[in-house]
Amino acid sequence: MAQINDDYLKLPGSYLFADIAHKVNAFKENHPEMELIRLGIGDVTRPLPPSVIKALHKAVDEQATAEGFRGYGPEQGYRFLREAIAQGDFASRGVEIDPDDIFVSDGAKCDLGNFQELFGRGNVIAVTDPVYPVYVDSNVMGGRAGTFDGKGSWSGIVYLPCSAENGFVPSLPLKRPDVIYLCLPNNPTGTALSRPELQRWVDYARGNQCLILFDAAYEAYIREDGIPHSIYELEGAKEVAVEFRSFSKPAGFTGLRCGYVVVPETVKARAADGRMLPLKPLWNRRQTTKYNGCPYIVQRAAEAVYSPEGRQDVRDNVGYYMENASTIRGGLQAAGLDVYGGVNAPYIWLKTPGGMDSWRFFEALLNRFGIVGTPGVGFGPSGEGYFRLTAFGSHENTRKAMRRIADAGHWSEWKI
Amino acid sequence: MAQINDDYLKLPGSYLFADIAHKVNAFKENHPEMELIRLGIGDVTRPLPPSVIKALHKAVDEQATAEGFRGYGPEQGYRFLREAIAQGDFASRGVEIDPDDIFVSDGAKCDLGNFQELFGRGNVIAVTDPVYPVYVDSNVMGGRAGTFDGKGSWSGIVYLPCSAENGFVPSLPLKRPDVIYLCLPNNPTGTALSRPELQRWVDYARGNQCLILFDAAYEAYIREDGIPHSIYELEGAKEVAVEFRSFSKPAGFTGLRCGYVVVPETVKARAADGRMLPLKPLWNRRQTTKYNGCPYIVQRAAEAVYSPEGRQDVRDNVGYYMENASTIRGGLQAAGLDVYGGVNAPYIWLKTPGGMDSWRFFEALLNRFGIVGTPGVGFGPSGEGYFRLTAFGSHENTRKAMRRIADAGHWSEWKI
Repeated sequence: MAQINDDYLKLPGSYLFADIAHKVNAFKENHPEMELIRLGIGDVTRPLPPSVIKALHKAVDEQATAEGFRGYGPEQGYRFLREAIAQGDFASRGVEIDPDDIFVSDGAKCDLGNFQELFGRGNVIAVTDPVYPVYVDSNVMGGRAGTFDGKGSWSGIVYLPCSAENGFVPSLPLKRPDVIYLCLPNNPTGTALSRPELQRWVDYARGNQCLILFDAAYEAYIREDGIPHSIYELEGAKEVAVEFRSFSKPAGFTGLRCGYVVVPETVKARAADGRMLPLKPLWNRRQTTKYNGCPYIVQRAAEAVYSPEGRQDVRDNVGYYMENASTIRGGLQAAGLDVYGGVNAPYIWLKTPGGMDSWRFFEALLNRFGIVGTPGVGFGPSGEGYFRLTAFGSHENTRKAMRRIADAGHWSEWKI
Repeated sequence: MAQINDDYLKLPGSYLFADIAHKVNAFKENHPEMELIRLGIGDVTRPLPPSVIKALHKAVDEQATAEGFRGYGPEQGYRFLREAIAQGDFASRGVEIDPDDIFVSDGAKCDLGNFQELFGRGNVIAVTDPVYPVYVDSNVMGGRAGTFDGKGSWSGIVYLPCSAENGFVPSLPLKRPDVIYLCLPNNPTGTALSRPELQRWVDYARGNQCLILFDAAYEAYIREDGIPHSIYELEGAKEVAVEFRSFSKPAGFTGLRCGYVVVPETVKARAADGRMLPLKPLWNRRQTTKYNGCPYIVQRAAEAVYSPEGRQDVRDNVGYYMENASTIRGGLQAAGLDVYGGVNAPYIWLKTPGGMDSWRFFEALLNRFGIVGTPGVGFGPSGEGYFRLTAFGSHENTRKAMRRIADAGHWSEWKI
């Protein structure tokens, strides 16, 4: 009989958002009168913007004609989109990226999940803690995580704790890893790093021959100056960093699916025989073998995001959600809670009050206010004692949620 | 420094269709006057059908409204599509498939490339020869192929030769493999198996504890009775077979991207500790971790393929292309060539005349007639001495190609 990839079996059975859904459903059954407000999952709620809708209709019409029809496209993405990205996301910020180094995909989750395939099983992976679970889980499946301790940590993974104590800025690793995942602005903590803070990581990677997998999915939410939008703004980053981007959060593509990876020709890793080889041809081989390109109509939609109308649509979207972030920050602070993030990121990270654990706070918020959030511990051991709310709801719901909290006064007076 | 997955480095550098493109470009430069006719790559040329275009526009409009907007969907696909598939592709043929066992994706190439992840590195893989390269290459990347002999074979893979001698019907393997890839109707040979012929494979898999990965991407092209459209029409197949389907060839989705896998709850493989475990939860875990679902608008388009109008559109498409298949068969036979396939499949497989090798025939066809096809050897060692043409061109171009050949008379009189 065929043998299973036993690394899959190491993954703990349950999954954060499934657990949450289960608890929420139980609550709804017991409290059908309570209107739930979901500020948990990082999904957008605003419809696709007009520039994108227009581009989609136009591309659909092209696909209806013999002259305009496009079948298999380049697995790497159409030239028109790769050039729009190179110009709109990089050249416009003074960063030169060759369109040939850009690989368009159906989303950053897929790219982040698949990229570890290029690495041998022996690589040591480092992640910030708390962290987006895909980095860890995909490496568990790839055999690089060691054993699970049953509480949230893997023996083979280097964790870089981020907490209020260090301002959610990870310290450089004590043990040198081979590959470091960095998500900035961060999911879930909402933290962004300044240019000198990020330069330290690039310098560390150069000095220690590490690779940085840089997840910039929330780049559009940066509002303050002095915060790099791309890791390639930093000196030397093109030697050590691969950057992942997504159209999901800036332009509402969560259900449309488009993202991209930048793999500069100069980023290399070591083969067993000692040769240093560029990763780009390997990623190209992975994508041409196991992927067939992002739909043409979706790539035209993504291209529209870089038009003047599209840029305005993104500003509107981001502005709308960031108003929620501000509403949530203010509401929680008024209740006496310690609040982080929500300034350069759509995520608000709060310290659970009175030493409550994450799941206990989840239930308190659900039962007392009908608000669904995400327990911090679901993102890693250092997330214990924290909680994530997202800015992706409607103004109305977000304000309603904060009014419920305001009505209950200081957290110490909540009847929970 | 990070270490590369050295299995990637085992893959031979060049790639069939890239080699072809290179030769075609050289020809174009030297013969700018010659109009090329491309009957090589398996991409469709007819525009998306009206039912699909209508569904796309409607879904795009939904995505433009706050009420109709859909963000992240279920990674497994929306219920409406999974139910339409279960009804339209299976129940309609008397096969009961649980919609929960259907996983919608962005295409069969991705699914076929990714599915091997579920298996340990020690599994022995069998493929028919010639074969769609993705099965082999993805297993090379997964460390299951052994070493390459430089000519076309991998030491760790069991090859099942298909040639004119055995009517392109593979014999059961002499050495028992763990996993068998079968593509029926076949790419590239165009062969289909009768019910008793396929039942032998299911019985073999049951008797020898093998898994069958059944690629049914060309199912819609079956025109003769007695040929199973799904492996689940065969007794016992739900214990041993996973089936892959695609909307690309029936409905022109090559640039729109949608396919699906059926993983019956009853298909199992062995864990290292000896337990027999179902593959379905593992595939679910793979998809929920590394994939984010097929775009909502594309799933609505796929659903439309099952409407009465959509079914008629598929019949029209298939009928159109199969007329080309017939034109090509007739044209080649008139030139004295031995021709296979093209009856239940959009592929025509011909024996190169006079003992010519595949690449030599490629160049003859290109230089003499301006026709681009695919050398059989590109699909595996047993493809040497054969050549593939596809039925996916326009009627006009296909007829023009065959007229060029007809004008040159019997192949022995071609001046090549």
